[in-house]
Amino acid sequence: MTVIHFSRGIPPREAIPSAAISECTAALLSTEADRVFQYAPIGRHTGDQELREQLGKFHSVDPDRLFVTNGSLQALDLLAAHLLRDTAEPQVLVEAPTYDRAVQIFERHGARVSGVPLRHDGIDLDVLKERLRTDVPAFVYLIPDFQNPSGVTTSEDKRRELVRLSAEYGFTILEDIPYRGLRLGGTAPTSLAELADSTDGARVLTIGSLSKVLSPGLRVGYVIGPADMPRALAVLAESTYLSPAPLLQAVAAQALSHGLVRENIERVRELLRPRHDAAVEAVRQKLGDVHLCVPEGGYYISVHLPVHTDEVSFLTAARDDGLALTRGSAFYPADAAPPPGTVFLRLPFQALDPEEFAEGVRRLAAAAERAE
Amino acid sequence: MTVIHFSRGIPPREAIPSAAISECTAALLSTEADRVFQYAPIGRHTGDQELREQLGKFHSVDPDRLFVTNGSLQALDLLAAHLLRDTAEPQVLVEAPTYDRAVQIFERHGARVSGVPLRHDGIDLDVLKERLRTDVPAFVYLIPDFQNPSGVTTSEDKRRELVRLSAEYGFTILEDIPYRGLRLGGTAPTSLAELADSTDGARVLTIGSLSKVLSPGLRVGYVIGPADMPRALAVLAESTYLSPAPLLQAVAAQALSHGLVRENIERVRELLRPRHDAAVEAVRQKLGDVHLCVPEGGYYISVHLPVHTDEVSFLTAARDDGLALTRGSAFYPADAAPPPGTVFLRLPFQALDPEEFAEGVRRLAAAAERAE
Repeated sequence: MTVIHFSRGIPPREAIPSAAISECTAALLSTEADRVFQYAPIGRHTGDQELREQLGKFHSVDPDRLFVTNGSLQALDLLAAHLLRDTAEPQVLVEAPTYDRAVQIFERHGARVSGVPLRHDGIDLDVLKERLRTDVPAFVYLIPDFQNPSGVTTSEDKRRELVRLSAEYGFTILEDIPYRGLRLGGTAPTSLAELADSTDGARVLTIGSLSKVLSPGLRVGYVIGPADMPRALAVLAESTYLSPAPLLQAVAAQALSHGLVRENIERVRELLRPRHDAAVEAVRQKLGDVHLCVPEGGYYISVHLPVHTDEVSFLTAARDDGLALTRGSAFYPADAAPPPGTVFLRLPFQALDPEEFAEGVRRLAAAAERAE
Repeated sequence: MTVIHFSRGIPPREAIPSAAISECTAALLSTEADRVFQYAPIGRHTGDQELREQLGKFHSVDPDRLFVTNGSLQALDLLAAHLLRDTAEPQVLVEAPTYDRAVQIFERHGARVSGVPLRHDGIDLDVLKERLRTDVPAFVYLIPDFQNPSGVTTSEDKRRELVRLSAEYGFTILEDIPYRGLRLGGTAPTSLAELADSTDGARVLTIGSLSKVLSPGLRVGYVIGPADMPRALAVLAESTYLSPAPLLQAVAAQALSHGLVRENIERVRELLRPRHDAAVEAVRQKLGDVHLCVPEGGYYISVHLPVHTDEVSFLTAARDDGLALTRGSAFYPADAAPPPGTVFLRLPFQALDPEEFAEGVRRLAAAAERAE
């Protein structure tokens, strides 16, 4: 029996335009080899200037507000160091479930990380407000578009309220938007950063990445924030890892300036559309009403699957049935958990063809039935 | 007046074989583009396997003992996180002077960093032993070959004693060896790691880098340690920045396997030799007996220059005389300083032609005379 992998959230090979990126690289090396194999110049640890300008255009923001990192995880790491360093016992609020590595990073930087339940349209605002009344966090970390791991997109109304709360209580929002470009239908809600621009006192930092829209191997992540942020993060970067590799930043700048990223986003959307549609259909048909939301893009659909056993036993049994699954409880911070009697399962559809996905869900349904 | 830059310790352009590295890159992309523009495979966050094998050959160690990082600064950052996390108020001992960014990293990870005076042949062992009697550090950080910033190489005798002390008191030694390959004369002392291999209970971790022997832009640093270390560091890396860029690791592996690194080391030595000789000669002639040592390689010669003024005034005056200098006190941890009545100056010779260096030293001598 072939194992079906509902596991890693990495781009399928065909979503990465390797040949075109190779061409960008070759063109660059013919003129810029001396520069890109040297250290980045002092004062340029905020990022390659051409890349900052291209990313500025891409996001319609001033390039001076951009800071480039070695992948967006490094952005989270530097931001956590920056935002948490002057606070004793800082608290960070996250969606529950959320991206597990983000929680690990915040904890490593000394934060107490607490989960606020995620609904089909974003974080539970009643619970959040209740929390804010007793304790204002250093920041709230959100993945508002096609969230990893749940697939949930935060609604326009909730975004407006979140930004208003940021201004009222004086906390920062980190919005992490690696999947935002991968919308397959519906209308994109306004980004939190854009809403903050028109809200006095609101503070939103945006974390972006080229991993899902161009190439993860380039390791290009970035932060968009106020104009004083890049310099502050550069000081930290200089005593962490200096800078991302100049060559890869220059390649990313070329790819953006040649329109390769926009072009590739269209290609990836076409690639994802049938996989997405089949995934939504398969989950609805075989598992019923257990999905957290119907995602309108991204990589993931997710479920709270009712089972009458514990998670480890369920995953072990599922593995014997030919299913590779990620442990869903790992996506919850320590003080949160899936609803009682369920396991949380992230089902990435981006790399599975429709038949594979449907077969995987069939196996899942059978496993759940046996576990009842 | 042209400013003479006694400032950054970066390789001169002509020390980086950009054209040959470009060729390695092009060759790689013709066959490996799909792989290197994807995420590194899970389980390969210890580093590209081919690179680990090539580095293993280069250092005559088992590849399983190697962990690859995004530049050697990132290695220091991950090692500090790893070695300091389970200790309350950990202490770290460093040479005084030492590499300033290393001190910043250790402090950021919660260490109290204390300096032990550096002599012409390495750290002052009497002072070190005195310290060890009252307080055993989490680790001792050493740059034993052509130290940045002083140029000092730790003698064979001191190395043996350091390794013996590591075993006796049970502390780890971090030896950082970016310049070790750049020896221009004399005999290389045994590496601390090699001495530790034959000393029961001694523990040495080695930090290496391709920045000074191949290219800083590739951002390839690495750690050599016991076989259980790479996996432990990979877990940390996975919640810091995942991995260095696969493409650049693969390029470095190619450069090593084609003998490009050894070839380039020979080239760089030939390039450095006249600059080194002229620098030593100029310092002796114009400044007298104020150098910390006569370096046998690397990038730096350094001086404790007697002045009758404070450092800031001296550097300001020197700048007016056309000298760009790095603030020498920055190379001392908070509890250490240059001898009273002197300023510490690092004089990098790797990027200056003999006439420039000599002219710089003439200006320095004049500035010191005026400041007396």
